Amino acid sequence: MTPDLPVIRLKPKANAQAIRRGAPWVFDNELVMDRRSKALAPGSIARLEDAERNALGVVAVNPNSRITARMLDRDPEARIDSGWFRVKVDKALSLRERLYDLPFYRLIHAEADGLPGVIVDRFGDTLVVQPNAAWADVLLAPLIQALADATGARTILKNSGGRGRALEGLDDADAVLMGVAPDAPVPVTMNGAIYMADLTGGQKTGLFFDQRENHAFAARLARGAQVLDVFSHVGGFGLAALVGGAQSCLCADGSAPALALAVEGARRMGAAERLDTVKGDAFAVMETLAEQPARFDLVVCDPPAFAPNKPALEKGLRAYERVARLAAPLVAEDGYLVLCSCSHAADLSSFTGACLRGIGRAGRRAQLIHSGFSGPDHPLLPQLAESGYLKALFFRL
Amino acid sequence: MTPDLPVIRLKPKANAQAIRRGAPWVFDNELVMDRRSKALAPGSIARLEDAERNALGVVAVNPNSRITARMLDRDPEARIDSGWFRVKVDKALSLRERLYDLPFYRLIHAEADGLPGVIVDRFGDTLVVQPNAAWADVLLAPLIQALADATGARTILKNSGGRGRALEGLDDADAVLMGVAPDAPVPVTMNGAIYMADLTGGQKTGLFFDQRENHAFAARLARGAQVLDVFSHVGGFGLAALVGGAQSCLCADGSAPALALAVEGARRMGAAERLDTVKGDAFAVMETLAEQPARFDLVVCDPPAFAPNKPALEKGLRAYERVARLAAPLVAEDGYLVLCSCSHAADLSSFTGACLRGIGRAGRRAQLIHSGFSGPDHPLLPQLAESGYLKALFFRL
Repeated sequence: MTPDLPVIRLKPKANAQAIRRGAPWVFDNELVMDRRSKALAPGSIARLEDAERNALGVVAVNPNSRITARMLDRDPEARIDSGWFRVKVDKALSLRERLYDLPFYRLIHAEADGLPGVIVDRFGDTLVVQPNAAWADVLLAPLIQALADATGARTILKNSGGRGRALEGLDDADAVLMGVAPDAPVPVTMNGAIYMADLTGGQKTGLFFDQRENHAFAARLARGAQVLDVFSHVGGFGLAALVGGAQSCLCADGSAPALALAVEGARRMGAAERLDTVKGDAFAVMETLAEQPARFDLVVCDPPAFAPNKPALEKGLRAYERVARLAAPLVAEDGYLVLCSCSHAADLSSFTGACLRGIGRAGRRAQLIHSGFSGPDHPLLPQLAESGYLKALFFRL
Repeated sequence: MTPDLPVIRLKPKANAQAIRRGAPWVFDNELVMDRRSKALAPGSIARLEDAERNALGVVAVNPNSRITARMLDRDPEARIDSGWFRVKVDKALSLRERLYDLPFYRLIHAEADGLPGVIVDRFGDTLVVQPNAAWADVLLAPLIQALADATGARTILKNSGGRGRALEGLDDADAVLMGVAPDAPVPVTMNGAIYMADLTGGQKTGLFFDQRENHAFAARLARGAQVLDVFSHVGGFGLAALVGGAQSCLCADGSAPALALAVEGARRMGAAERLDTVKGDAFAVMETLAEQPARFDLVVCDPPAFAPNKPALEKGLRAYERVARLAAPLVAEDGYLVLCSCSHAADLSSFTGACLRGIGRAGRRAQLIHSGFSGPDHPLLPQLAESGYLKALFFRL
């Protein structure tokens, strides 16, 4: 036994079997939080034992978080050092290198890649790290060492904007961990489109990789089409549709900087003359277009999370229904409507129901031709249902 | 009002609202089955009215089927003639032509394409029609006329092997409806692979188009890999993996003719030397391979429907668990395991649970990197949950 690790113990009533089967989290009410355990510094490494003192593995402990222990290694002798991180990073990297020709992807997707709470997005030789759990803040040095060694990255940025950090009692200070932060948006090639990622000023890590497969599917529907991309951000669906041969694309978003990045991407693709943008509230934009009346062959709505948590679910589903109701009239006969949700709380069935109600209230009927989720660089831990958040439904009206 | 249509009427307790919202079926217990209605010939066209005598649309009636009425057109004045068929076929064709470069796909997917119970698969200039509802048998002439006119097909075969036909009281006699049946298997190109489709002697319509997107995803994992394709049929996953750069592929199936077609496909692809086959019971083959012990980088199991209906669900889930338990030990460390189900009764969540139990009992842990369904040439009618039957789960072990 590694002698130097503190021990943290399950209560007799806790479900040790679930942890043995792969559950990655232990909640505060499942642990014996005696004075010694409570005194552990956030991010401490400890050995987890069941109530009968059988070792279950090595965990990261944060007495200030409801998720008090996160499983790091089921080998109770594991040492969490740079070599340990390197094994995790290499394994994650080998999947991404198999999947993608270019080094633009989510490299580490937290629990599913064996690094609880840690998100790493790769933009060529720049990595953006989100340490959304206390232990990753504490062990940031060996983590970035392993990342740099495995990928050859020259710049590593810390993004502290993740919602999880507040729940862990962590600060929101961004930092440059290695190299020099890029002073301009970085071009990122996905599905043949060029996206401009603002790695320091943008939303989240500057670009969302999770919709890549859904962008690609939308592009297959876009040949010769007039396309409307609502909540376009930097043009995720819109620029992919231009690659797919869209005749024109109108990107609508509330953020002028995001639209400017979409325009710059289109310019670099030599497709600037096929792209238009409109800045404004998405709901208002759709109502205005309906009055013209404008019709599109392909309409995509990829809104922010309207139902990020259970209490917001009902209100969120009404918002999704409203999106569908406003978008459906803008779709030409036999055209396509893509409706997305990145809400954890809205499962596939309730989101689909909300979309169908909205489409029905608009007086339209739909075939469902495809259901897409986040791409394979966002693997899921099957034991953690929460991790499947992204849904994209492709309807034909 | 078209004067010549008989009327069939909902009982007061029937859910007319569900039908107005898009439900395509009316069951026997929802209809007033008086002597006149019972006397309608199977496949008769009628006008459906609610209990208050409001017209709901034109339906096809089969008094001998639990699904007594199928909605054909929500316009109560619609005439079901060759022009009506042509509109449906043209609409379905325009989706497939947008999606695929080559004329190999499911052209008509029943209710979702507006032709209840009718399946049409396209193999270039040969079509295979499955009229799985009585009305389609009765109106076969205008249907095949529309199909031939829209596609330019020279051969149309009738396949009467669908399970639905027995429930409708229909015979199982195959027929050549137009042209001359091919006297040899037809080469079909999908995802760059060449599949040999036996349109007269094979299973169903000779080839399954529904797994195309999942074949393509598996091919992305196959570069340099040693691949095992269990329940391979004519090599659906295996030949796609060879296109993806697999070093070798072993196809296992119980059918010698299916394996011979896989070999012929590989030969035409110039990949015969990378393909091996083994004929035998899939479970026994996996047990034998485990004893050697053989290990593969990518293992795919695409078994027949173990849970085709609700009563068979529990037994079916145990069979899926057994497949996972026998397959997982054959997967190399960090390798990939693809588990498929084409069972209507096993939903995504219960199928996933069965797979995870099997993988766990084999002492392995899994990431879920992708969930795939049937391809977009198999659109779904959202009101008909039954239509989403195919699941393919891509695990990394």
